Amino acid sequence: MESDTGFQVALEEARLGATEGGVPIGACLISAEGRILGRGHNMRFQKSSPTIHAEIAALENAGRLPASAYKGATMYTTLSPCDMCTGACVMYKVKRVVLGENKTFVGGEVYLKQRGIEVVNLDSQECEQLMSKFIKERPQDWYEDIGV
Amino acid sequence: MESDTGFQVALEEARLGATEGGVPIGACLISAEGRILGRGHNMRFQKSSPTIHAEIAALENAGRLPASAYKGATMYTTLSPCDMCTGACVMYKVKRVVLGENKTFVGGEVYLKQRGIEVVNLDSQECEQLMSKFIKERPQDWYEDIGV
Repeated sequence: MESDTGFQVALEEARLGATEGGVPIGACLISAEGRILGRGHNMRFQKSSPTIHAEIAALENAGRLPASAYKGATMYTTLSPCDMCTGACVMYKVKRVVLGENKTFVGGEVYLKQRGIEVVNLDSQECEQLMSKFIKERPQDWYEDIGV
Repeated sequence: MESDTGFQVALEEARLGATEGGVPIGACLISAEGRILGRGHNMRFQKSSPTIHAEIAALENAGRLPASAYKGATMYTTLSPCDMCTGACVMYKVKRVVLGENKTFVGGEVYLKQRGIEVVNLDSQECEQLMSKFIKERPQDWYEDIGV
């Protein structure tokens, strides 16, 4: 299943981020045809990067693509996307954003919808647990990641 | 002058991008105190990157910073920021975005203002010439960069 694959890959990426000691957020960009275009996870601590959030990592790992490649694509992410990642999805005009959960953080969901992008919340307990643990253990690191 | 420095550095970055055969857009992030936090230019062709736009490069080169470092900061960019870079400025809550021009491309200026960020357009002829030349010579490369 296209949807299962995208979410499972995003979740694998989030788990990988956790094992690396990073922010446990993963993402996967799936084409209209169901092919994985790119996948990645937040690299703030691994690469000391303030811009490589999970969705940015997935887009970056997909490499240079013509606009047509994003047509009908879905961005799977384990957490509601921040304003930067929301903007990236808007700029590349993905069709849909599927997020793991928005209980630990609410990003640009309303704006995505305003810009014509479908938003689906999977309400995943595992995604929420990964983030809750991280935020509880490292609140300052989390605030830094979202500019709070 | 804080404002002159930021814009001059962004323009230098744009020129550097042009000499490298890249998209000629530069940016510079200046702190509330007038210090250069980060600078950079679009790296789509140099690094085969779909996410390192000029503003993202400036933020990335500034490195990991606490939210307080962005307080009162200004993002100078030679071109009206695309939706991704707009979102990055919103996420890190910069105070102001100063753009070189918006004749060749209009990005998220309205949204920046809606989110409480001041927007200043310098209407720079050199910025416009750099972009006009690039768009005329390499339209497909430009469309790719903005997902069109």
